[in-house]
Amino acid sequence: MSHWFKSDNTSPAAPEVLAALTEANSGYARGYGDDAWTARAEQRFSEVFERDVRVFLVGTGTSANALALATLVPPYGSVFCHEQAHIVRDECGAPEFMTGGARLQLLPGEGAKLTPAALLRGIADNPTAVHTVQPRAVSISQATELGTVYRPAELQALSETAHAHGLLVHMDGARFANAVASLGCTPAAASAASGVDVLSFGATKNGALAAEAVVFFDPARAADFEFRRKRAGHLFSKMRYVAAQWLAYLDDGLWLRLAARANANARRIGEAAGTLRLQPVEANEIFVRPGAAGIAVLRGQGFEFYDWGADGSGEARFVVSWDQTAEDVDALCAALRALPDTAST
Amino acid sequence: MSHWFKSDNTSPAAPEVLAALTEANSGYARGYGDDAWTARAEQRFSEVFERDVRVFLVGTGTSANALALATLVPPYGSVFCHEQAHIVRDECGAPEFMTGGARLQLLPGEGAKLTPAALLRGIADNPTAVHTVQPRAVSISQATELGTVYRPAELQALSETAHAHGLLVHMDGARFANAVASLGCTPAAASAASGVDVLSFGATKNGALAAEAVVFFDPARAADFEFRRKRAGHLFSKMRYVAAQWLAYLDDGLWLRLAARANANARRIGEAAGTLRLQPVEANEIFVRPGAAGIAVLRGQGFEFYDWGADGSGEARFVVSWDQTAEDVDALCAALRALPDTAST
Amino acid sequence: MSHWFKSDNTSPAAPEVLAALTEANSGYARGYGDDAWTARAEQRFSEVFERDVRVFLVGTGTSANALALATLVPPYGSVFCHEQAHIVRDECGAPEFMTGGARLQLLPGEGAKLTPAALLRGIADNPTAVHTVQPRAVSISQATELGTVYRPAELQALSETAHAHGLLVHMDGARFANAVASLGCTPAAASAASGVDVLSFGATKNGALAAEAVVFFDPARAADFEFRRKRAGHLFSKMRYVAAQWLAYLDDGLWLRLAARANANARRIGEAAGTLRLQPVEANEIFVRPGAAGIAVLRGQGFEFYDWGADGSGEARFVVSWDQTAEDVDALCAALRALPDTAST
Amino acid sequence: MSHWFKSDNTSPAAPEVLAALTEANSGYARGYGDDAWTARAEQRFSEVFERDVRVFLVGTGTSANALALATLVPPYGSVFCHEQAHIVRDECGAPEFMTGGARLQLLPGEGAKLTPAALLRGIADNPTAVHTVQPRAVSISQATELGTVYRPAELQALSETAHAHGLLVHMDGARFANAVASLGCTPAAASAASGVDVLSFGATKNGALAAEAVVFFDPARAADFEFRRKRAGHLFSKMRYVAAQWLAYLDDGLWLRLAARANANARRIGEAAGTLRLQPVEANEIFVRPGAAGIAVLRGQGFEFYDWGADGSGEARFVVSWDQTAEDVDALCAALRALPDTAST
Repeated sequence: MSHWFKSDNTSPAAPEVLAALTEANSGYARGYGDDAWTARAEQRFSEVFERDVRVFLVGTGTSANALALATLVPPYGSVFCHEQAHIVRDECGAPEFMTGGARLQLLPGEGAKLTPAALLRGIADNPTAVHTVQPRAVSISQATELGTVYRPAELQALSETAHAHGLLVHMDGARFANAVASLGCTPAAASAASGVDVLSFGATKNGALAAEAVVFFDPARAADFEFRRKRAGHLFSKMRYVAAQWLAYLDDGLWLRLAARANANARRIGEAAGTLRLQPVEANEIFVRPGAAGIAVLRGQGFEFYDWGADGSGEARFVVSWDQTAEDVDALCAALRALPDTAST
Repeated sequence: MSHWFKSDNTSPAAPEVLAALTEANSGYARGYGDDAWTARAEQRFSEVFERDVRVFLVGTGTSANALALATLVPPYGSVFCHEQAHIVRDECGAPEFMTGGARLQLLPGEGAKLTPAALLRGIADNPTAVHTVQPRAVSISQATELGTVYRPAELQALSETAHAHGLLVHMDGARFANAVASLGCTPAAASAASGVDVLSFGATKNGALAAEAVVFFDPARAADFEFRRKRAGHLFSKMRYVAAQWLAYLDDGLWLRLAARANANARRIGEAAGTLRLQPVEANEIFVRPGAAGIAVLRGQGFEFYDWGADGSGEARFVVSWDQTAEDVDALCAALRALPDTAST
Repeated sequence: MSHWFKSDNTSPAAPEVLAALTEANSGYARGYGDDAWTARAEQRFSEVFERDVRVFLVGTGTSANALALATLVPPYGSVFCHEQAHIVRDECGAPEFMTGGARLQLLPGEGAKLTPAALLRGIADNPTAVHTVQPRAVSISQATELGTVYRPAELQALSETAHAHGLLVHMDGARFANAVASLGCTPAAASAASGVDVLSFGATKNGALAAEAVVFFDPARAADFEFRRKRAGHLFSKMRYVAAQWLAYLDDGLWLRLAARANANARRIGEAAGTLRLQPVEANEIFVRPGAAGIAVLRGQGFEFYDWGADGSGEARFVVSWDQTAEDVDALCAALRALPDTAST
Repeated sequence: MSHWFKSDNTSPAAPEVLAALTEANSGYARGYGDDAWTARAEQRFSEVFERDVRVFLVGTGTSANALALATLVPPYGSVFCHEQAHIVRDECGAPEFMTGGARLQLLPGEGAKLTPAALLRGIADNPTAVHTVQPRAVSISQATELGTVYRPAELQALSETAHAHGLLVHMDGARFANAVASLGCTPAAASAASGVDVLSFGATKNGALAAEAVVFFDPARAADFEFRRKRAGHLFSKMRYVAAQWLAYLDDGLWLRLAARANANARRIGEAAGTLRLQPVEANEIFVRPGAAGIAVLRGQGFEFYDWGADGSGEARFVVSWDQTAEDVDALCAALRALPDTAST
């Protein structure tokens, strides 16, 4: 019997979200977002972030990230980001495609986080001229690809450095809910109030079927997003179904409750992992190094998960879903505790 | 009170489709199409078209069309298509974007249909050299943007002409169900068996929430589609929800029943339109020319529809949905009959 | 023995141009346009056009046109142009490539010229929405691809129409010298003073080796041209050789003298063509319809020229170079006079 | 008085090259490469490389590199290259532009050289899936951006590793002459015979005005290059002037004589640099670290050169041209000898 920790996208949608979608399936509605659900959803985002935002709903995180970057960065531009970022490693070049060939400039950083120092190093290492790509943005992930979370003060420092050098700040928030739940701060503090200019806000991994949003904290920056979205095939005709998911997701704090539950289970697993653990567990992901043998043991016990890092690294990633059962979590905790300590390998 | 004839995308999803989606919302499943629903759906397409096909599920018709063309046509290529085609007039340049800048070469034709003669004229008018774009495909719509339908023999003739000149044939089947229901032939006869190479097969307008498919009748042609889909942000992580829609849609002929119902209602309206009618009603769309005054009258009566053609044309498009009520249809028939005959204007 | 009328690009460079290039081949100079020749050339353009212009030198007309359009038009934009325009028929999709997939929207017009009426028709036929490409520019050729020339008043009327609809005006001036010489007006009157925003100014066809320039009449519009030029590989390291050609070309009216000579010879040929002639001869090109038989006769007599129009049109194009010999011109006049009158075919 | 060591592109063209260009400036010739000079030049490349090659002439190194890569790599592909490569740091994203958004994947390496180990590391660090870009090529520079040169055995080992992993090998040969002269081997041994698939062969920096070539050692790989070249505006109409430069450049070993002279002068300067020297001097470039103070001293003495590396690195690059005078070389040797030893800083 399988225990699913491969990704939070292997989980189903939350009942509240499916119910909202079902309820929206009644009567006629104008297409392409000119409907009541979308209007209400847009309003909700402004409430959640405590400011007037301009928001665009899409169906995948990759489209949210790449379209957001295409709006911020010209074809001859570049984006500083962490070398482990999802936009680098998991989107098959979508940012390059949507921007018309802009470049991702990779920076190192502990826990998949960028620091002002790393950014300044990147800027210094890449003096600009007509012969070079032109840096225009920084993209960070919240929570990061290694399950860590930026504190508001870290965001603030990074954003100030970015803005001082003419760079806009994009946040990949595929797991934004997990980050906010982990920080215990307001959504604004984890993004806009800390200097983020544009947020890719994901719901899919945390209880939706397929619902992502690009949130422009300065509506003026959104100028041509709608054309880019349409042109890339990401303007849904029956938009109400995406909007309805968002309405349920944001309603009465559902998104934060689901994320907090996943985070708590992840913390439990992280503690069980002991010295195998590679990163602090601040969201719903646990990174461990069981070695090749340990990985084989875990697979043999029915755990579904991804190998991580370079070929042969002996590392693995476990992701906890919003609805992960206590049985699954218990089983993984026990299995990790039973592994020999190979962290020193 | 409104009568909705603006587009078939204003209608909700069919109960069977929503039920399937709800049923799929249980337990875990691997992401990105590596799940049981997607596997079954893929199998169903091969059955429906009576041959081994390679199929890719996406969420919008624009992405289906543009990604299909990007797979067939290089950046320096071109696509012959009707000057009224959806890919020309309603996708904000998605084909150009996805192909890396290939060109649509526009051809005229009655009822938004291409003929072998028009295609040959287009080929002759555009002699090729290193200085020109290189024609590589023809794209047609089935049903067309003017609500007409290609007969299998027409498709066959057009495909033969295309193939003889080294052009592949793409079919935009956003309303493929309406076309097949109208023809009373097999799905294969309306596409692959008549020479079509790649089909954008839509379900969204005819009872799904958001479900489209790109069907390659020669699997070898699909070689790099999966990378293009991912890169464009169109690979859903929770693919089961798209696949489940398709399973219900194709099950037990639901798709053809829904389409046949819409077609029958459209024919009724077409008859009521009398001399206002501009095109034969062969699918679920009715094109009329009530003039500016007639348009105002209809809008005043609560009918939702699009103006059509150039600014000031006095033309209008009505689209009948799968679940359009008899009341809506009766009301529109009556309203059209009550309009003065302005067809000669 | 051959008589060369295939294109003005079959001719060599003028002695003055080659001398300037030779003279520039001495000593060291900073690369990429940061040299004295380029600085002087840039200055000369402002003098020639009687205003402060921003100019960028490139090596081909295709790069000049496509880079200019890429600066004016976003990827989701479009450009209205004549259906016979060089950017449509002879640049292998360079405008689509450089813009990131913008569209050329084709308009008809006598003598390959656009009129305000045709432009207004094009605008009316293409109502915009988020679903459509967004018209942003008009591109015209001066002289046109059919050897005709826009009068300043025609330009003015067209530019006013364009600007009133938010469209910028690009002029493909591959044969701008021939147009100005033909009009007998100032270069400004044939372009900037008549509302043109950006000019692709060619020298190659009229006595240079490879020298083209993109002239922005409003320097503010040139903002990112330099990055696009570099990125497309069109920033020459040894720019002095392009600049030196321009200095000689513009010096003491050489460009207009060479063009006037070619124009005069073309007019002679046009008169000789009699009823075979298809277009008024206003620059250095002559279009005739000798029919297939006549074409074969002319080829047999050693004339080099292009067939024109669709396959089998029986039409031909003759282009007169700046240095065309009297013998060549006399021979062509005689040959055309000797052909039977097939214009009525 | 200035001493020019900024780049070899600050030097003029060799007299033999200019003479050939002047000689070509006579009579008419068909455009776009359909001329006798181009035919002869193409033939010469096959002789030089001792095999049937397919060659395309262009005007800049950036276009040669980017168009070559665009022919080898799809939009969703990637290219492994050194992190200091010209295609990374000096082409404003041209490879991304020409390929339609492929990615450069950066690898470290001593002396700006890639090793099989570094390549294998890069491959292992970037496991592929539908979610990732697809590596398709390796690009190396010969001579490298740090003035070092790959031995044939090094090339062979790297090419074998590349080919074993399905990667084609592109060589940026902007200074290929300097590399071949330095190695004392055949041109083939420094490229095709050692596994290189496509070479960007530069002449501009070593005595031409503007002449580069893309050489496909397997003509079948060149399939669509001609369309890409045209579409990017890099097909010269008066191609004879580029071809004539190549004919003189390759005639009687001129290219190797000029390069050998520059190399010898560079070696002299490298010896004078002593411990300031950062890299072995194997071609015509010298990299030193005089520190900020030393750099200021050298600038004050009239030396023109580029700062190198990150802002504030205290490093500098000197490039020796084919015609650099003994006075220039002597002056630089003396100035470097007079600097305090700051290499340990």
